[in-house]
This record gives sequence, C-alpha cells and structure tokens, in this order.
Amino acid sequence: MSEFKLSSVEEFEKATERLLETGAKVGADSWQLRVKNQTPHCKFGEKGICCRICSMGPCRITPKAPRGICGCDAHGIVGRNFLRFVAGGAATHSDHGREICHTFTHVAPDGDYKVKDPEKLLRIAKEWGVETEGRDIYDLAHEMAELALMEYGKPYGVQRWLSRAPEHTQKLWHDAEIEPRAIDREVATAMHMTHMGNSSKAEALIRQSLRSGMSDGWGGSMAGTEFSDIMFGTPKPVDTEANLGVMKEDEVNIIVHGHDPSLSEMICEYAEDPEMIALAKSVGAKGINVAGVCCTSNEVAMRRGVPMAGNFLQQENVVLTGACEAIVVDVQCIFPALGPLSKCFHTKFITTSKIAQMPDSEFILFEAGSAGEKARKIVRMAVENFVNRKKELVHIPQLKQKATVGYSVEAIIKTLDGVTNSQVDETGTTKPLLDCITSGVIRGAVAMVGCNNPRVRPDSAHIGLMKKLIANDIIVILSGCSAQAAARAGLMDKQAKELCGDGLRRVCELADIPPVLHMGSCVDISRMVVLASQLAKDSGLNISQLPVVGCAPEWMSEKAVSIGNYVVATGIDTFLGVEPQVTGSSEVVWWLTEGIRDWVEASYFIETDIDKLGDRMIARIEEKRSALGI
Amino acid sequence: MSEFKLSSVEEFEKATERLLETGAKVGADSWQLRVKNQTPHCKFGEKGICCRICSMGPCRITPKAPRGICGCDAHGIVGRNFLRFVAGGAATHSDHGREICHTFTHVAPDGDYKVKDPEKLLRIAKEWGVETEGRDIYDLAHEMAELALMEYGKPYGVQRWLSRAPEHTQKLWHDAEIEPRAIDREVATAMHMTHMGNSSKAEALIRQSLRSGMSDGWGGSMAGTEFSDIMFGTPKPVDTEANLGVMKEDEVNIIVHGHDPSLSEMICEYAEDPEMIALAKSVGAKGINVAGVCCTSNEVAMRRGVPMAGNFLQQENVVLTGACEAIVVDVQCIFPALGPLSKCFHTKFITTSKIAQMPDSEFILFEAGSAGEKARKIVRMAVENFVNRKKELVHIPQLKQKATVGYSVEAIIKTLDGVTNSQVDETGTTKPLLDCITSGVIRGAVAMVGCNNPRVRPDSAHIGLMKKLIANDIIVILSGCSAQAAARAGLMDKQAKELCGDGLRRVCELADIPPVLHMGSCVDISRMVVLASQLAKDSGLNISQLPVVGCAPEWMSEKAVSIGNYVVATGIDTFLGVEPQVTGSSEVVWWLTEGIRDWVEASYFIETDIDKLGDRMIARIEEKRSALGI
Repeated sequence: MSEFKLSSVEEFEKATERLLETGAKVGADSWQLRVKNQTPHCKFGEKGICCRICSMGPCRITPKAPRGICGCDAHGIVGRNFLRFVAGGAATHSDHGREICHTFTHVAPDGDYKVKDPEKLLRIAKEWGVETEGRDIYDLAHEMAELALMEYGKPYGVQRWLSRAPEHTQKLWHDAEIEPRAIDREVATAMHMTHMGNSSKAEALIRQSLRSGMSDGWGGSMAGTEFSDIMFGTPKPVDTEANLGVMKEDEVNIIVHGHDPSLSEMICEYAEDPEMIALAKSVGAKGINVAGVCCTSNEVAMRRGVPMAGNFLQQENVVLTGACEAIVVDVQCIFPALGPLSKCFHTKFITTSKIAQMPDSEFILFEAGSAGEKARKIVRMAVENFVNRKKELVHIPQLKQKATVGYSVEAIIKTLDGVTNSQVDETGTTKPLLDCITSGVIRGAVAMVGCNNPRVRPDSAHIGLMKKLIANDIIVILSGCSAQAAARAGLMDKQAKELCGDGLRRVCELADIPPVLHMGSCVDISRMVVLASQLAKDSGLNISQLPVVGCAPEWMSEKAVSIGNYVVATGIDTFLGVEPQVTGSSEVVWWLTEGIRDWVEASYFIETDIDKLGDRMIARIEEKRSALGI
Repeated sequence: MSEFKLSSVEEFEKATERLLETGAKVGADSWQLRVKNQTPHCKFGEKGICCRICSMGPCRITPKAPRGICGCDAHGIVGRNFLRFVAGGAATHSDHGREICHTFTHVAPDGDYKVKDPEKLLRIAKEWGVETEGRDIYDLAHEMAELALMEYGKPYGVQRWLSRAPEHTQKLWHDAEIEPRAIDREVATAMHMTHMGNSSKAEALIRQSLRSGMSDGWGGSMAGTEFSDIMFGTPKPVDTEANLGVMKEDEVNIIVHGHDPSLSEMICEYAEDPEMIALAKSVGAKGINVAGVCCTSNEVAMRRGVPMAGNFLQQENVVLTGACEAIVVDVQCIFPALGPLSKCFHTKFITTSKIAQMPDSEFILFEAGSAGEKARKIVRMAVENFVNRKKELVHIPQLKQKATVGYSVEAIIKTLDGVTNSQVDETGTTKPLLDCITSGVIRGAVAMVGCNNPRVRPDSAHIGLMKKLIANDIIVILSGCSAQAAARAGLMDKQAKELCGDGLRRVCELADIPPVLHMGSCVDISRMVVLASQLAKDSGLNISQLPVVGCAPEWMSEKAVSIGNYVVATGIDTFLGVEPQVTGSSEVVWWLTEGIRDWVEASYFIETDIDKLGDRMIARIEEKRSALGI
C-alpha cells in the first residue's frame, strides 16, 4: 500500500525527452518543434476577429477598421467563427455516431458485429416506443438502427434522446429554442447562418451554437455511445495499465488510435487469433500486443482492458519508441505528422476511413461489411513488419500505472447498489451518491474532459486539478484524453484514494473505486449528461442546482467546444482552461459567460491560471451547496 | 433603334459617387471606405494557408514553418479550408431549397401559396415515379414536398435529380464517387473530414468538395428552383427595367433583397392590394413601388417583371437614395452594414428570417404559415414610413435600362420551338440551338454567373466579358448578380443585338431574344446544368464536348465556389476572375485546374486579367469546336 506513488508530469517529460533524442537521430519532426515554429500565433485568429467567410476579404477587425467589408462588426465575426467551430465539432462527433449506427445495421448472430448487450437494446427500444415483445433481438436491432439513422435527417421533430432529461431541463430547452432537430440539419443551419450576409447578431449565433452542441451530446454522441454499448458491451469496471511502458519490446506492438471502436474492436479480436499469434512467434515475437492512443484507446480499454499507451500529445511518442509495428487509425485527432514520422521508422501508418485520408499512409478501407477480413489483413501486416524493426532505435520508457476503468452509468449505479442496504434501500438509483453529497462526505463532482493542448504544459492541468479536487473531497468523473492523463499518472489506481480528503477516501474504500472514474471516450460525455439527469431525477433537484461542474482544462478541438455547449446547455457550469477564440468580442464573451445563464441556468467560466481554475470550481461547488443549504 | 446605348460602368460609378456624397452628409459608412480600411488583406488568408480549425493554433505556413502543430502541411490546410468554403456554400443554397420545400408543404387552393404550375409538378412527379393519375393536385404537391424534404436526410441512396443528367455523366459521377447522398449529410461529412486530425490529403478533400457542390446543384438548389417554379410560376419572357432609376421619388419604395422568394412574392402581392395603395395615397405617395436587389430581385423580376434596382454592391446605394421606405430582407448576401446605414436615413431595415438576424434591424419573423399577415404588416410599415422621408436627402440617379428576362429552360425551349418549322422539325428540343452551334452561326455559349467583389471594378468584368463574347457570336446565359449587371447596362434590351457578331445578331432577330438570357437567381444555376444536359442528350454528345463554358468573373461568396464545383463536375470548364484562396498549395491548385479533369472531363481556369479571361474562354470554345470538327 505504502508503495503507491503517482507518476509525475516531470517523469512523463523525461521519457518524452529521451524519445525525442531518438527522433533527432532519424531526423524526425515533432510537435514540440512545430509549436516553436508556429509561435507567436496570429492575434486576429486567437481573438476570433479574422473573417475568411467570403473572398472579398480576409477582413480583420482593428480600432481603425471596426467592420469588415460587408459591414460585419467584431461581434458578428466572432459569433460566426464560434458557431462554425461548434458546428465542426458537432458534425464530427455525430458522424462518428452515424458510423456506429451504420455498423449496427450489420449486426448478425454469426457476423463480425453482434448484439452484446441485448438488455440495453430492449431498454432503449422501450424508451423509443418500439414494440419489443416476442421480437427476435436482431430484428429489433435492425429496426432500431434505422430509427437511429433517421435522427440524422428526419424533416420534422426534435431529437428522441431529449426525453431522457428532467422535465424542467426539457422545458428550458424548448423555451430557449435550442431543442435540436435532425442532427445534420443543425450543422447545415449553422453553416447557412454564418454564410456571408446572414446572421451577424451575437445572440442568434450563440443560440444556434447551443442547439448545434445539443445535436451532438443529446443526439449524435448519445447514439454513438448507446449503440456502441449494445454492440461491444456496456463498460463495467476492468483493470488495465497505462502509459508508454505498456508497449512490449519482445512482442508485435499494434497501436490503435482515433475514435470509432468499429475498427479497433475487430483489431483486438484478430490480435487474439491463434493463427496470428503463431505467425508472430514465427517471426521472432513473443506475441501480439495491442495498445491504444486517444479515444480509441478509451473505447477498448473500457470494454476489454486493452492497455492505454497514451493520449493526444503522446501519439508521436508511440512511434518514437521504435517498437511500433503499426499505428492503425480510424478518425479524428490523428496527427498528419504520423505520415512522415512513420517513414523515419519501420512503422506502418495505416489509415482506414474515407473521412481521414492522409499522405504517407497505407490506406486500407475499413467497412462494416468486410470488417473481419480487413482487420485480419491489418494485423497480419503489422506482424510481418516485426522483422523490420531497427533494434538500435528501440527504447520503450518504463513508465506505467495500474488503472481500473469502465464506469458507465450502469456500472456506477451497480457500484452504488453494492453499498446500499438491500433490506431498506432502493436499488438502481444514484441515491447513495446523493446521500454522500448531501451529508458532505463528498462535496460535489467534477466532470473533467477534453484534450491536450500545447498551450498548457501537457497533462499538468488535468492531473493537478484532479489531485486538488479529490483532496477536497470532490469526486471526479473523466473521459477522453483527460481520463488517460489520470490513468497514466496513476490516479485510476484504487490506491489513489490515499490522495483524497477523508470523506472521499472513505467512499472509495467502501465502494472499492478509484477517486477518479473513467467514463469513456469523448463521445461518452453523453454518459455524463445522462448521469446528471439521473442525479436530478433521484434528488428532485434541477440539474443546475447540483454541486456538479464540468471542466476542460487543456481542450483543443472543435469537438471540445461542441461538448462544452451541450454540457452548459444541460445546466452544468463549465470551466475552460484554454480561451476559446472569442475574446475579440465583448458581446460574445458576455453571452457565453453570463447571457446564456438566462436560458439554461449555467454558463462558461474561462480561467487560464489553472490553480485559480481549481479554486473557482471548488468555490462554485460550495456556492451550489450553500444555495441548497447543505 | 439607333437611339440604343448601353449604360457604362463609368455612369454607374458617377451615380454611386453622387450617392456617397449624401452618405458623407449623414455620416454613413460605405463598402468603399471599408475596403480601404481592410486593405491590404492578410496574405496567409488569401493563400489559404492559415488554419484555425483547432485551438492549438492558429497555424500559418511559411518556409520556416512548413507544417502546422498537428503536422498538417499547406496542401492539407488549403484543401480543408477549400472544402469548408464549399460546404458553407452548399449548405446555404440547399437550405434555401429546403425552405422552399417547407413552404411547399403549405400550398392550398385558398392559401397564401398555391400550385401555379401544375404541369411542372406532374412532370417531376412522373420523373420521381410518383403516381399522378387521378390525383388531386394539392395532395400530390404535399406528397412531393415530403419526398423533397427527405432528400436532405435520407439515410441511404443518392440524390433523385441525378437521373436527369446524361448517362455518361452519371457514370462519371459514380466512378469518381461524387454522387451526393442526403444533402445535409454531405455538409456534415465535409465538416467531419476537415476537423482536426482527419483528412489532410488534397485529393480526398477535393473529391468531397465536388460531392458537396453536387449536393447543391443537383440537390438543394435544384429543389429550390423547381419547387419555386411550381409555386410561383415557371419564368417566361417578361419585360422589366433595371438600375437605380427604377426607384420612384413620388411613390413608397419597398426594396426586397436576399434570395428566398417565399417572402418577396408575398410582399409583391400585398403591395398591389387596393387597401395598401389607398393607404399610400393617404400619406401623400402616388403608389407603392417594389423593386429588388440581389437574387430576390431576380426571382420576382423573372416571374412578375418587378424592376431590378441593383445587385450585390448596390445594396447600400438603394438606401443612399434617401427614398427607400423599407429594405426587406430574407437570407444571404445582406450587408450587416444596412443596419447602421438605415439609421442614417428614415429607412426601415426589416429582417425576417431566423437564419439572418442582424443588429439595428426590425425583426419580423416570416413563416409560411402566416405569410400573408406578415407581408401585409411589412407593407403597411413601409407605407407609413413614407412621411418620415427627409426630402433634402432624396436623390435617385436617373439611370435605367429596359430588360427582357425570364428564360427558364422551358422558356428557352419554347422560344426555340418558335423558330422551328413545325411541318418538319421536332419541337420541344434544343435542336435549333444545336443547329446554330453546329453551323457556326453561334460559336458556343457561356454561362456567366456570380457576384460582385470589390477585388474587381464592380460590374466591369461581367459587362466587358459579355460584350466581348456576343461580339464573337457566343450567346451568354446569366444568373445572379451577373444577370443584373447585364440588365443595368442594357444588355438584356433586345436592341443589344446590335452589339453582336453577325451570326448571333441574326439569331436574336429570328428568335426575338436579347443576346444575353436571364435564367434567374443563383440557385437557378441548376437550370443551366439541366439545359446542358438537354443539349447533350439532343446532340448525342457528352456535356464536356459541347462548346460551352462557365464563368464567374467577380465571384465573392462560398455559394459561388459550391456552384463552380457542381458546374465543373457536370463537365463544364469554369473560368474564375477572382482567385480562390488556394494558391498556397500547388497540389490543390493542380487538382482544381487539372487533376479533376480525369474524373469529370472539366476543370477550373483561373485568370484575374479579365481581358485574357475572355480570350481564354473564346479559345476554349473554339478548341471544343475543333475537336468536334465543326
């Protein structure tokens, strides 16, 4: 017990430095070098006051030029840029969800994809009013897949999933006119509104940006999460390991990277195929080791315990170990840099999606209809590449930590059931957690999410904030690259309870959980809003009254802002450690940090001093508690 | 006859100068001033090598920084920016089409909206395989409206309209994988592909940019055109007038501006209401004069002969006359500048769409369900505003020209039927035109389209090129702001045949047409691809073999590039007078100007020297003729 020690950011950095030495030897580029080349950044872009939406410009707002050629002012320009940013994120997450729904149309009892959680399928079918009685589960699955796909394009009505929210929240959405219609339509509307000569009123642009975000979290992302669970299994607690040390010097290392589990699930299947393992042995490897990067890693870690090699800013590191036979990617957050970098090593950089086509990669089109065949081909290619490894370049940093992952909403409730007294307590609710919060044993919860961003010392904000929060008896739920930062540091080791305040430590002991709970990939933030809805229903409070906040301290992508928007729209104050590119408009800043509170009872808090960010979250949680008189 | 004289660009400019004097008196801003403030433009933006897609940046490509932080190079950055530009345009046009389809769901025998062209409705229903026999025309209309709306979101299949193209063209599209699926899906796909960490391969990005464009021209725009025709009437030749001189000093002037005819049609209706005219007289006006700006103007000019006050860069001028009681706008290409400008005068700036909400405007939500009521309210508001006119500020430049407009495909074919010998010739085809082309009486045709852009002396390229082309016996078909430039200059006066070469003049005389034919608004460029398809079918040639090219000499908006993409994808070489923001990538430039020719048998030609642009178009037409041996 006393041996437990977190890995520090300094240790992460030392490992990276050693890998960069290898990189220097082979003439590899790195994000660290590119950041230097790209600094300082354009101030117009950083403030959001550069408009490139038509070819009269580009236009830039300055004191001497307060309007673009069309007459649009800073508020309109910033608002448009912000809405397009959100639309990019919403389209991206939702298209991931759509791909899952398309894969779901292929489920078959003897196919590559199966229904692994029929109970969840039945539950959602009932939610959607679909007849389940006496149905063949695969028939039902196919009907549900078609209904889910229609959510992207139906000409009328709003998203089915909205009805999961508390009635109060649904009413807020209705009154604010931010209920999302068909998912793709909200993207198209956003693009139309921001086209030259349309909306330039900040209020209108921010309203649509919330609706766009809603179409993600309460639309496409939710579909992605739920149908992934049905096909690949709803996550439950599972032990794994995290950090670059999970790569193995004597095995074939296949890194899966990206977001959509349709591919990585199949890679994992075929990496366990005895024929493939025999092949690996025949080329001198002891076996096949699959490890993950980014959200694909979260997906397969949560469902299979596949180890997590690293998060977003570690993706080049896995190649720099010299021990990566193949880095197999699906979509999103994949550095184009991996193309030229892999050429400096023996690594095969395998792209698989029409959505993500990159130079200097081998493109193997992966489609649900031929998933097994393609996965086998990819695994074979990696195995056969083992002999090309350059031994003199191999260095795997011996850093890794234990982690318990897999806390879906279902798993959390099951864990809570475990601490109820079945004689007197209701099971299947969040009430034990609410009791802890009410009594003050736990002060509140923070949903910490999002990416890495070189603007913040990588992982330092995630890890620093988590340590601070759990020391203050605030439980933390995690997803995405934030979750991986925690796992790599050791915060998902159950022994990390030692770092908690007395209250939270006791809860961790009783419930046998780590103090920070891995809820999944970035689409799985939909799980967090479902959990918040459940807490509100079980407590009789509005979501906005709960001592719960969201935080994205190192966010980077458009998806992160789309997420922020639906989290805020759900009534959860959201704290950002990186400024969105909106500071050029006082109006847009006002709408995001104050104005939208009138619509959704929550808003953004922007604070780039990470220590202060933590203090402000704690203060906000205590403020919510005071308001409740607890 | 000998009195006929074009209005010159110098005359346009003189009129504008006089109006700007009024502006100066009242402290008005103007696009001319803003262009000065915004010059020089950012070179990174102009070349397309600035990336703001995630918040690690903005990143800019320089010789010292050849990749962004993620490792994306100039080709990936330029390609992504280009695809997003196209997606913005496709979403915008298509959403216009969707609004028309929604309006179409409201048609009723006694409603604000009716079926004015049942024949066209029946024709399209048959095309779509919908039972028409014995159907009530309104029942049929409602079914067709629902089918049309599904084209935006259907989970499977490609656009219905594609089957209108020649089989050869359809095969090219299929082989190139650019057949558009659901319209909104192509927007979402474009946004997803360009999200951080997805596609950075120029080829993939350009391929999707063609498919996005196709979802506009052979999807949303075509729906917009066709269902507008069914509701408001398919255009046929009608006489009107054009330029600022159409505004009337002694009448209430209502300017309709934007794109969607759902609103402007109703405004025109109610402006003719005796009650409203009486009201106008009661406030001292002689009547109510509706005139148009931009594509809304094209819509109501083509169907009602409503005069055209001006095109895109004239929109401030109509307010500067001091005689504009209301400028009523729907969507797209509306200067936010109209807000503050209208405040310098008595003008009411009335916004009506949730898509286009602007500061300093009066927002009157216009919806199909309450169209009449809202239109009446707007007309009344304008009439009542007449008394607020400041006489000392009124100056209407006395410039105007006659124009014959309304050349839909149906009208062109009907015109051609008029010159056939009904005893021996087939009617209802484009063969008489093909005969003229084959014989060389007409050398070919140019589809000239697009906006104004201060980068080009306004209207000079449109008018200069038209004069050059018709003098060379090349017939010109027009849409959008290009059409209005022609009308304002006088080129749509049938007497403009005097400016033609001998061959084209003779054709104009025989067919009784102007040498440049007004085919409509910018969504109506879908008419042009239908016409090209018809010419190909009637001639047995492929579209790409026809001596026909497209040209956008002063384009400005994202829509223009979306249009360019579908015109090129249809097999028509397209000539641009303004550089797209792609010159920072040799690869993207190559794909657009050469590479895509392998897929679609056509490509872009970029030439900012307008005189050379004309020469190159003529040369290309002659080259096509030579290849055909004609």
